[in-house]
Formats: sequence, C-alpha cells, structure tokens
Amino acid sequence: MTEPIKEFPIQRLRHSKIAAAQDQVAVEEPLEIRLGGEPFQVLMRLPGWEKELALGFLVTEGIVRDLDEVITMHFCGTATDPLLPPNVVDVSLASAALARRGRRHLEVSYSSCGLCAKEAVSEISRSLPRMTSPLTVAPTDICALMERLQEHQTVFKATGGTHAVALASPDGQIFIHAEDVGRHNAMDKVIGRAVLTRQNLSGLVALLSGRISFEMALKCLRAGIPILAAVSAPTSMALELAQELGLTTLGFVRGQRFNIYTAPQRVAL
Amino acid sequence: MTEPIKEFPIQRLRHSKIAAAQDQVAVEEPLEIRLGGEPFQVLMRLPGWEKELALGFLVTEGIVRDLDEVITMHFCGTATDPLLPPNVVDVSLASAALARRGRRHLEVSYSSCGLCAKEAVSEISRSLPRMTSPLTVAPTDICALMERLQEHQTVFKATGGTHAVALASPDGQIFIHAEDVGRHNAMDKVIGRAVLTRQNLSGLVALLSGRISFEMALKCLRAGIPILAAVSAPTSMALELAQELGLTTLGFVRGQRFNIYTAPQRVAL
Repeated sequence: MTEPIKEFPIQRLRHSKIAAAQDQVAVEEPLEIRLGGEPFQVLMRLPGWEKELALGFLVTEGIVRDLDEVITMHFCGTATDPLLPPNVVDVSLASAALARRGRRHLEVSYSSCGLCAKEAVSEISRSLPRMTSPLTVAPTDICALMERLQEHQTVFKATGGTHAVALASPDGQIFIHAEDVGRHNAMDKVIGRAVLTRQNLSGLVALLSGRISFEMALKCLRAGIPILAAVSAPTSMALELAQELGLTTLGFVRGQRFNIYTAPQRVAL
Repeated sequence: MTEPIKEFPIQRLRHSKIAAAQDQVAVEEPLEIRLGGEPFQVLMRLPGWEKELALGFLVTEGIVRDLDEVITMHFCGTATDPLLPPNVVDVSLASAALARRGRRHLEVSYSSCGLCAKEAVSEISRSLPRMTSPLTVAPTDICALMERLQEHQTVFKATGGTHAVALASPDGQIFIHAEDVGRHNAMDKVIGRAVLTRQNLSGLVALLSGRISFEMALKCLRAGIPILAAVSAPTSMALELAQELGLTTLGFVRGQRFNIYTAPQRVAL
C-alpha cells in the first residue's frame, strides 16, 4: 500500500531568512474505477481505502443502491487478480446497477431544464425520496463529534493538505473517518465504508472539515444520511436542495458554536 | 446577471442559546459549456464571468491554445442569440481546437500506463513544453500580492464559502482576480480573463487562497504560468509535475512567510 505522506526537500523562508528543510506532503494519486473491466472514472485521491472510495463513489453517483448489487471488487495486488494494474479498482456490478451508469453525469439529467439551479434542484428532488429519518442530535454532541473529527486529522496535521469527513452515530459509538486531498473523495470513502460494513446510514451524522457544496449535500441525500455538519460555509444551492428534501445542514461548527440552516427538527434543543 | 451572494434565514446557536438570523451565502449554480451546440461539460460555480470560465476551462483542459481558435462565444441573454437557455455558454471552435476535445479526459491519455502518479506525470511531461520563463519575483512582492488577494476576497468575507485565485505581474500592475465555490473554477476564470485580454501569461504569478493539487499545477502549466503561490499546502503529485516541468511552487504564503517547493530560481533572494 502506498503511504499517504511523503517527505519532500524544500527551502523555508522566515523573516527574510532561507533554510533547507524536509517537509511532509500529502500524497495524491489517480485511482481508476473500472466497471467490468471498462474504464469508467478517474479520481485524484489520497491512497488508502481504495475499495471504499470506489464503492462510495458508485453509491453517491446513484449507480449502486445496495451492496448486493456489487458482485466483485478487485484492487491491484490481490491474490485473485494479480495482473490488475496499480491504482485500478475493478468493480463487477449486477445488471440493475450497471443500467444506472448512464445517469451519472449531470449533463444527462439536465438535458431539457435550462440548467438554472432551481430547476436542477427540482429535477433531482423528483428522483430522490424526501429524508424521513427521525434521528436527532444534541448540540453538545455535534460539537463533541466535530472536535473528535479534528483529533483524527492526522494527515492534515502533518501536511495541511487534506480534508476530512466522518460518519458518526450521535453517541459516537460508530465513528468512520477518512481524509483525502479532495473532500468529495473523503465523503465517498466513509460512505463506501459504511455500506461495506452494513451500517444504517439513516442513523448517522456526516461531519466535514470544509464547506458544504451542492455535490456534498447531494452525496448525503443519495446515501440517505439525514444530518450534515461542517466546519465551514454551505452554498445556496446546497441549502436549496437540503431544504427541498429535508436534509439537516449545520455550518460553521466551531468550538461550542454552529449555524443551523435547514431541517432544524433534528437538532434536539 | 445572477448575484453571487444570497440572504438566507438561519438559526444561530451561541453558548447554548439559539437565535434566528439572516446569513449571507455564496450562490452556486451549474454552467453548461457547449461546443458548437453540443453539451460538453457542466461546472458548478459562482455566477459571473461565464465566458471567462468557459474559455479558461477550455484552455486549461488543453483544448484551446490561442484566442484565435475561438470563433464565437455566446452566453444567455445576448442579442445575438436570444434563445440560448440560461447558464449555458456556447462556444464555437476552430477545427484544430475541436480535434483536441477527445483528449480532455485523463482516462483517455492514461489508457496504457497503469495509472501510477509517476507514469502519469511522465506522460503529461512528454506532452507539454518545459517552463522556460525568466520571470523572477522578490519575496516581499509575493507576500504583498497575497495580502492583496486576501483584500479582494469580498464574497469570502461575507460568506466564508469561496476560494480565490489571482494572476498578477510581480509589480502588481496587472492583477486579475476571481472567487468561486470551486478553486478549479476560480483558476479557469482568471486564465480565461487573461487570455481574453491578451496578457502574456509567462510574465504572471498565480496566487491561490487554498491548496495546490495536481490539477491546479497542471492548469498553470497548460496556461504557461511560471509561478504558483498558495496560502496552503501542495500535494506530492503537484510537486512531481512542477519539478518535472520547471513550475515554481510556493506554499503556506502567510504574513512574511512561505515555503519554496520547486524551481527556486524564480524567487529573487
């Protein structure tokens, strides 16, 4: 397995003085996801949890809906498929999932709607069920979980170059976390892990080190996660989608503070 | 034109107290780039500078090499094309540029190399010229330019939800800046603007509010920008590519400090 951190020789400038130093940087590498041997998608990501990443990506792109739809999944160097090249995950899917692959591109589903955010949100809303999870979480638990996420950001602490995402139960008993050079990848990894270990995603809170974009909200909705809490800001389109489908969004979760943006009934005040 | 900031009603939690408030959020909307009327790519972005974004994207994806290759470019609501739907930029390209569109996906160019980062960097290195710009910049100028970038982050100051990129001459006479919900988009916007206004990109420094990923370094190299300075960390693959092709990369530019990672000859010490 490739290490996620590399030493790199640098020159460090401090108060107009320069000095050679060793710096630790986050490793970035491509990962190709193949479906039945056919190239499908390339993601730039931090090494590790390749199968989780591939699966999470397939789930949050709306292609895989259940682990049973995954027939086999091979990563390079396995005994079962020694000839598979490095940085490739080859996934064999059931025909029902394979039939959904054509819908992964936004271009396709947006073909007739003029591409305004409102119409796009409406169109997605019609294709996804409204979030009905009765999950609630106490404010102190949200803050404690976010603090725990920060404690787990080991690659970030060394390099400053990664985002982190976790999926957690409100009591912190379940705590699945991942770092990545891209926050989309980090989200896909933890979702992939949760699906692989058959967690009930409707009972989990997603925690992000960064911002809530439309795509991050959509990933939660497609995976069935009812609460999304982030250290930074959400975007308008993320909030419109969250509001439309009943996803709870919390932003600027810092210390004992946060903002509640949508679906506030899941915060137990 | 859609405004880049929206008011949104929220509930704010402070020290276990909750209060209704208005929050300002960054607007995110899709933009479809069409080539000769055919759907090509959808980007999620902050409204504004749509043509710059489309053009910069086409440049940094390696499709457009010169403004002369762009025959026409229409955005919705123009007098010349009143029926074009909203959030679509339709670009008509010369046949030479159009012929390059098949090479925009990494999947295609990586077909045989096993997808390791090293091979990918080598493959790209063979397809791009080495950076030969004699541009140099003084450390104090780098720090001053980065400070100026921060002063221009108006949407970020209001929302906390955007990244910023600028292209600047070392003396600060040329200073093209953009914000976006995605840093890739912000980079494409300023490059598009520089190409539209016929700037000499080999005389400019790129400044980022965020991190230097492989794709951000590749965008600079494809556009011919010799120096890339960022507030945060680079990744290993970005540095390998930068080293291979002679792109100067500076990280953690904060106050009077920064790290020099690659091609240090362009920092005038």
